[in-house]
Amino acid sequence: MKEQITNIAKEAAQAARILGGLGTAEKNKTLEEMAKSLLKNKELIIKANKKDLALAKKAKLPAALIDRLLLNEKRIQDMADGLLTLAKLNDPVGVEIKSWDAAAGLQIHKVRVSIGVIAIIYESRPNVTSDCIGLCFKSGNSVILRGGSEAMNSNTAIFKAIAQAIKMNKLPEGAVNLITTKDRKAVDILLKLNDYIDLVMPRGGEALIKKVVSVSRIPVIKHYKGICHVYVDDYADLNMAEKICFNAKVQRPGVCNAMECMLVHRDIAARFLPGMLKKFKEAKVEIRGCALTQRIFKEKIRPVTEKDFHTEYLDLILSVKVVDTIEEAISHINTYGSHHSDTIVTDDEKNAKNFLNKVDSACVYLNASPRFTDGGQFGMGAEIGISTDKLHARGPMALEELTTYKYIIYGNGQVRN
Amino acid sequence: MKEQITNIAKEAAQAARILGGLGTAEKNKTLEEMAKSLLKNKELIIKANKKDLALAKKAKLPAALIDRLLLNEKRIQDMADGLLTLAKLNDPVGVEIKSWDAAAGLQIHKVRVSIGVIAIIYESRPNVTSDCIGLCFKSGNSVILRGGSEAMNSNTAIFKAIAQAIKMNKLPEGAVNLITTKDRKAVDILLKLNDYIDLVMPRGGEALIKKVVSVSRIPVIKHYKGICHVYVDDYADLNMAEKICFNAKVQRPGVCNAMECMLVHRDIAARFLPGMLKKFKEAKVEIRGCALTQRIFKEKIRPVTEKDFHTEYLDLILSVKVVDTIEEAISHINTYGSHHSDTIVTDDEKNAKNFLNKVDSACVYLNASPRFTDGGQFGMGAEIGISTDKLHARGPMALEELTTYKYIIYGNGQVRN
Repeated sequence: MKEQITNIAKEAAQAARILGGLGTAEKNKTLEEMAKSLLKNKELIIKANKKDLALAKKAKLPAALIDRLLLNEKRIQDMADGLLTLAKLNDPVGVEIKSWDAAAGLQIHKVRVSIGVIAIIYESRPNVTSDCIGLCFKSGNSVILRGGSEAMNSNTAIFKAIAQAIKMNKLPEGAVNLITTKDRKAVDILLKLNDYIDLVMPRGGEALIKKVVSVSRIPVIKHYKGICHVYVDDYADLNMAEKICFNAKVQRPGVCNAMECMLVHRDIAARFLPGMLKKFKEAKVEIRGCALTQRIFKEKIRPVTEKDFHTEYLDLILSVKVVDTIEEAISHINTYGSHHSDTIVTDDEKNAKNFLNKVDSACVYLNASPRFTDGGQFGMGAEIGISTDKLHARGPMALEELTTYKYIIYGNGQVRN
Repeated sequence: MKEQITNIAKEAAQAARILGGLGTAEKNKTLEEMAKSLLKNKELIIKANKKDLALAKKAKLPAALIDRLLLNEKRIQDMADGLLTLAKLNDPVGVEIKSWDAAAGLQIHKVRVSIGVIAIIYESRPNVTSDCIGLCFKSGNSVILRGGSEAMNSNTAIFKAIAQAIKMNKLPEGAVNLITTKDRKAVDILLKLNDYIDLVMPRGGEALIKKVVSVSRIPVIKHYKGICHVYVDDYADLNMAEKICFNAKVQRPGVCNAMECMLVHRDIAARFLPGMLKKFKEAKVEIRGCALTQRIFKEKIRPVTEKDFHTEYLDLILSVKVVDTIEEAISHINTYGSHHSDTIVTDDEKNAKNFLNKVDSACVYLNASPRFTDGGQFGMGAEIGISTDKLHARGPMALEELTTYKYIIYGNGQVRN
């Protein structure tokens, strides 16, 4: 198996040299043909998906997971539309970041180039297969995919349909790769191939991500979890705060940029909390509060623990803490948060600036719901994930974040003294 | 020891929160005081250095290493001047990279911020201690240093002098840290502290770097080696080519951006090689050539091997290969090179473009010596190293490359639909 996987990586590296130099028109045409091929192979894909669904039901996987696994005409159409959208987005490759004249009359151009080979290790949702292929392809990178075993049949069918378009356009087959063995050692082998693979992105639960980080010799960009906060300042417009907090928790609790912990300044806690918490209760949100929150809110609520503050609920559960100062709020977020997205609601300019500067997160918001952290909402088009890392890319990652740069230097005979 | 090193990292992380928000004026003032303190403690530093030198001589370390270890008044003055230069460079922190209005009327600002805690593991040259502290400090990062054991006394003396300036300015002591235990396990412990440390930069030989990459759970940016090429195209100005190749090999053979392999197009080989190789021989360069090079150059030269092409000589030795096409040259560089700096000499625009686009190196040159890859030559001021990685930073790394970014988003009550 080691040889087989190493060969895949080698071929991906070879293909990347060609992909990195492809023109935008050719990439867009191929993306359009990938979309067509998906639709053409719709029935094969749905048939393969039915196999996965049957196995999943037999294995008694949770209903939510089975729903994420499900493919139907609509979802395949969405996948195809995703590829067509990518064809319309700007090509990041070849764009000049900056240029200047340096010592000795050299002209230095800092230019965006593809990264090379990107490995993506992901779980359950089969549409990730086509999304990742599309994003990597448009940014000129080869991709090696390793999906979850529960979606193996669906992923393989999607992959085959897309690979046909690659082949039809006479592009190297190593441009897109799917590892189909169910042997878990395959990932361990893959993660050591730092001679061929430039970047690994794990997408899935915390256990998967921790494993990848501990094993990989290849640079990893990841999104551990989303423990997002809204801090309601003593200078907040409480009406606005209520709307933002409610949206942040309730609109879609199962996603990474939903609020898991609400921090409230002591001076407005008695005015703000009773109405806010009542609204949450009506929306079936379970409140876990600090001592002061419990005292202010007459109804019985569960005490919040240290463990809660570290937990990404992904559910209708909310930690609530009253803080004495904005500094306490900032310190709480930097200690317990996941450096993802955090909001301050305030009308005070100084407090806003303090919070926005000191909170060490990819996205910090003034007077808006943290739910906006999303490539689409940011206007980046498609998104390959949200990085809670600080290196290379942070926050929503789209096409530009799948590139690196090189320096092209024009001289006319310069030698160094 | 684990507890002790973990505490250092924790305090560095705490300090980073303060450093990241320091104003430029305060940082510059502290840098000036670091420089003063170095000069004031000159004698102590030289005394400590003498201890290291005595131990090095006793251990019969090579003369070149002992020279790199040596500190004298001039070298301490250079260190102090380096810190003063940093005080004059632009502060990268807080600079807006771009900003735009997004959906729902949100104003998104992408702003440079400090990375956090940077660990640097390095060998022998004690001036690296003050250079790295200065660069990390100016870019708002805490730094944890682990120098070579052979320079431990010198590094400690330099570190203490600089730490005095940190203390005098009432900045957190965790801003600068030196690990002084000689136990090698300290590095293994450090490299697992990914909860506190954001980036590791190993600076030293290949063995050190390979070790760091294999052990670290923290993102690593590295510079493996510099196997740089000059390709003399069939459309080259041969006079210019001779000057560039000679400079690239001879001007300073012991550095990473010196040429290790010269590639020559077949059609001009007979005209170019005899004179060029004669010049190299006169400069005491040992030539290792391919079969055709051997045939063209009448004098006896050693045959070049596969191993040579993978070797960074750092010495007056040169591999020479005649290639049939520019594509062969590009492929050779992408296969054997270290993705550092490579040059094409040509007057043909199409060939230039082909080479500059396809060679997968941090810096690609047209008609100039690769010896210019250097933060100073690029006009970046000081440099913390040259990255042969593709992620986060590539090529010369200076202050800007020691930052990441965050998104600051201004709203007026927006919630997500």
